[in-house]
Amino acid sequence: MKKILLLGAGRSASVLIEYLVSQAAAEQWEVAIGDVCVDHLPSSVQLSSYTHTFVFDVHNREQREREIAKAEVVISMLPALFHPLVAQSCLALGRHLITASYVTPELKALSAAAEAKGLVFVMECGLDPGIDHMSAMKIIHQVKQQGGTVTAFKSFTGGLLAPESDNNPWHYKFTWNPRNVIVAGQGTARYIENGTYKYIPYPQLFKRTETILVDGFGYFDGYANRDSLSYRQPYGLQEVPTLLRGTLRRSGYCQAWQVLVQLGLTDDSYVLENSANMTYRELVESFLPGTDQELTLKERVAAHVGLAPDAEELYMVGWTGLFDELPIGLENATPAQALEKLLVPRWKLSPGDKDMIVMQHLLEYDLNGEHKQLTSSLVVLGEDEVHTAMAKTVGLPIGIATKLLLQGQIQQRGVVVPLQPELYEPILAELEQLGVQFTEKEE
Amino acid sequence: MKKILLLGAGRSASVLIEYLVSQAAAEQWEVAIGDVCVDHLPSSVQLSSYTHTFVFDVHNREQREREIAKAEVVISMLPALFHPLVAQSCLALGRHLITASYVTPELKALSAAAEAKGLVFVMECGLDPGIDHMSAMKIIHQVKQQGGTVTAFKSFTGGLLAPESDNNPWHYKFTWNPRNVIVAGQGTARYIENGTYKYIPYPQLFKRTETILVDGFGYFDGYANRDSLSYRQPYGLQEVPTLLRGTLRRSGYCQAWQVLVQLGLTDDSYVLENSANMTYRELVESFLPGTDQELTLKERVAAHVGLAPDAEELYMVGWTGLFDELPIGLENATPAQALEKLLVPRWKLSPGDKDMIVMQHLLEYDLNGEHKQLTSSLVVLGEDEVHTAMAKTVGLPIGIATKLLLQGQIQQRGVVVPLQPELYEPILAELEQLGVQFTEKEE
Repeated sequence: MKKILLLGAGRSASVLIEYLVSQAAAEQWEVAIGDVCVDHLPSSVQLSSYTHTFVFDVHNREQREREIAKAEVVISMLPALFHPLVAQSCLALGRHLITASYVTPELKALSAAAEAKGLVFVMECGLDPGIDHMSAMKIIHQVKQQGGTVTAFKSFTGGLLAPESDNNPWHYKFTWNPRNVIVAGQGTARYIENGTYKYIPYPQLFKRTETILVDGFGYFDGYANRDSLSYRQPYGLQEVPTLLRGTLRRSGYCQAWQVLVQLGLTDDSYVLENSANMTYRELVESFLPGTDQELTLKERVAAHVGLAPDAEELYMVGWTGLFDELPIGLENATPAQALEKLLVPRWKLSPGDKDMIVMQHLLEYDLNGEHKQLTSSLVVLGEDEVHTAMAKTVGLPIGIATKLLLQGQIQQRGVVVPLQPELYEPILAELEQLGVQFTEKEE
Repeated sequence: MKKILLLGAGRSASVLIEYLVSQAAAEQWEVAIGDVCVDHLPSSVQLSSYTHTFVFDVHNREQREREIAKAEVVISMLPALFHPLVAQSCLALGRHLITASYVTPELKALSAAAEAKGLVFVMECGLDPGIDHMSAMKIIHQVKQQGGTVTAFKSFTGGLLAPESDNNPWHYKFTWNPRNVIVAGQGTARYIENGTYKYIPYPQLFKRTETILVDGFGYFDGYANRDSLSYRQPYGLQEVPTLLRGTLRRSGYCQAWQVLVQLGLTDDSYVLENSANMTYRELVESFLPGTDQELTLKERVAAHVGLAPDAEELYMVGWTGLFDELPIGLENATPAQALEKLLVPRWKLSPGDKDMIVMQHLLEYDLNGEHKQLTSSLVVLGEDEVHTAMAKTVGLPIGIATKLLLQGQIQQRGVVVPLQPELYEPILAELEQLGVQFTEKEE
């Protein structure tokens, strides 16, 4: 029996766990699952003879090392901040590691030592980062092998709602960490367009969107992600004149979110005076100039942000309750914390709600004197609130990578990101069988 | 002879040094002046039998303690970051201290120990902070003593140009640290207006100005300073419905600066790609959406910020050279650093240029059922590039406070800010004799 240790069994690990259980008999796996709380795990896991669960405390060094020592490969679905700790133990004990988190400089620094010990730490192997890398590299390599030159690469991903569960004016609900949605895009977005470096200050980010069409699913708006430039080197696109990575939202969301940004409601850098005794209406008031009593609050917000009072954006903002005499009820809250508290119950997935992952790459290239365009799109729908599209697309690549590793099919060593055919070809192939399938379109 | 140690003898200390020299004979002072470089000090200082100069290194503990031990009072005009070091030595050696810097939590923490040793550390005793406190407290106490209730306090200060030296379209030159001017206002400004807390996000700060009239000097625009709310407690205005502190610029400046802010040119949080080989024109291009070749750069900036291409703001921005093929010539520069490099030679005081300090307090109060308004205004003109209004208004209050302290007229101990009549009355009275005089106007 080959022993796998999975650390972290929260909601986003549900599909990964089922995948591991489904493969365990054929692959001769024993899967140990550790989390701060394991009571919520479904009975299929509890009852499987191939798994056992235990209460795990990442800060307990003795337990951490004991459990890691027992396994051949460690999968970590813990929050990214714990990965240096886990990786250090894996290195010390000579165990492979697989995660869906970004390679930080701290992790990168372990690469040579891991390589020297014959270990592989597969990182960025979930959805974004993960499937985005794999599917991008597949088409980039494809074009290069034909002798083509990539002239533009744009890539957008969004964690959204399945059309049947889309029942609010924002066409959005939280399918991952709400706080990250509230502060998304802060800082300055950087990309390159026709050979010119481009910088978008945060106050303009949600105004400078691009419209994306996904066949069968309609239109989406993409806003630029923080640092697209950093993808040039790993993607082998050092000379590409246009490179942009972005996040997708349904049409309308970005324009309405821009109103919240302009007001100052996404600011997380200072604490409001008296937030505990303030209403959301008063909070909005505190961002408006003057104290004009002739106009309604909505009319004043409209004037402040340069919209008509009956604009769709203001209907959407009003829908959240921001214009209502609703207490914030949070001590020492930042504006972003107050906004998060307002939105969490309104953007919560209801029982039966299905989420949707949308990814689209747009690749332009020159081949034999012709300018061509290739679009590669992925839509994954959730099955229910547990088997979400997010849990599938984060968990399955990790599960497949684990299988490849234990089958001895991964030759790379050190800290590795799935940018090479060795990893992305078998992972994308099995994902396709599992229903996670890109559609390519040439123009 | 009473011994004074002055640490830091840069340009802003010029008037202070002359004041100390002018008083030395009558007051029986010996003034030791230490700086990293003392060669630039005028011969009047070098030749005075009451002063001597020496090369001083604040990090040399042995020298620092030896020199501080010799003095009765230490004046520090060093950069504020060195004040904890100087204050610690003053405390250890039992010496009084006077500075023009803000009381930081680190300094505040020394107050009880200083008090226990019978020492006074007079801080915030220059212009802003300094004269602003003193002149504000004078009129606030005046109103309270009459039995009045303050309903609004607004206070604005600007370091500007004398009208005769005002010869560029921004009506501005650097009279203090350029970097601080470039990044001024970043963060969120906070104040209170008619009982409502108000927050101005940085992207709107330079749009939300207030017009101020100073008799004989015309109109100015005031933009809100970072945290006006923190002045309520020290000024005894805990219940005041309106309190705002701001910075003054000549009319037009703020609207044009807003264009630079909107573009993203004041951002100091990230480094530009390839700044060493970029021109300012290319830098502006990198903040604009798209790559439209039909319009001129100025027209595209105009469209981006919502102005007409012939707007005065764009003329002012163009005057700086931002639209020109001018190399930035700085490695790894942030946008703010690139902008600073462009503006420094263009906003440099020329020989003979005179600066101007403008301060205005607007106080509204209720007295015997009547609503009243009191305006207190100060204008100080520089004499030349050395005897600047800035050097006068920063240096003279410090010099006068030193005299009061050595004459035994300051009874307060510990860390003290000039908010009490004991300090502000004699300092404002002597400032008046020296030509630094507020004009009060009742309405």
